[in-house]
Amino acid sequence: MNDKAIQDLWSEEWAHCFGCGRENKKGLRIKSYWKGEESECEWHPAPHHQAFPGITCGGIIATIIDCHCLNTAVSYAYKLEGRDVRSDPPIKYVTGSLFIKYLNPTPINKPVTLRARVKEMVGKKIVVVCSLYSEDKKCAFCELVAIKLTPLD
Amino acid sequence: MNDKAIQDLWSEEWAHCFGCGRENKKGLRIKSYWKGEESECEWHPAPHHQAFPGITCGGIIATIIDCHCLNTAVSYAYKLEGRDVRSDPPIKYVTGSLFIKYLNPTPINKPVTLRARVKEMVGKKIVVVCSLYSEDKKCAFCELVAIKLTPLD
Repeated sequence: MNDKAIQDLWSEEWAHCFGCGRENKKGLRIKSYWKGEESECEWHPAPHHQAFPGITCGGIIATIIDCHCLNTAVSYAYKLEGRDVRSDPPIKYVTGSLFIKYLNPTPINKPVTLRARVKEMVGKKIVVVCSLYSEDKKCAFCELVAIKLTPLD
Repeated sequence: MNDKAIQDLWSEEWAHCFGCGRENKKGLRIKSYWKGEESECEWHPAPHHQAFPGITCGGIIATIIDCHCLNTAVSYAYKLEGRDVRSDPPIKYVTGSLFIKYLNPTPINKPVTLRARVKEMVGKKIVVVCSLYSEDKKCAFCELVAIKLTPLD
């Protein structure tokens, strides 16, 4: 198990994503870590990430969930093959679909914690489920379907 | 029909959202307009909104879709009552759930166009469907459920 964040392992080409790219100075730069079978991310919204006063924007929540889940899926696929993420051939997935249920307002002045796990892997798809918490309150739930790109895509 | 953007009609309190707040200088500041039964939004991603080179981040797409659809829902509810959006009592909706299917990569160097419409209104829920296009190519589809807040929420 690697103690570096998943996002810190990708090559430079994949390090500029708005949600999770470590090199994107204007991005959210989330960090995801494996904790056993789950991947975890702790992140703090900034004041300009609000929806309305005191509450975090649902789109920002969707962004960090999307990135956390997709990073989890790709990292899982490499782990399954027992391979380093910079080994060839590269394994590429994209988000095929994203379902988010907003359960409670997410306060903007507190950190959020995301916990995700692979629910199933079928053919070209990896299904990842994720919950977002503010302190102990579950504020959002997501099911994301990641789709593997073939060399022809 | 008002020729101002929906976002330009809300009171100052609701003008700071990351996705659509006209006063949020660090936000995306999308603008939604009614065009008959549909609401339309044209917006141009910035270079730092990328997922990977040349392609717009899925979280940014989720953000603009969420805001466009929720603005559409609330504006629709006021229209249905034949009321000005600043009249009392205020009508408030939040996003209850968001389903997005990513159909094609969205180029970052071109504007996107979002077209949404109210699919149904049942009880406290308004269901909005939305498609996102890059030129003539449909790149994403969304179904969003907006939930009305009662004065007790």
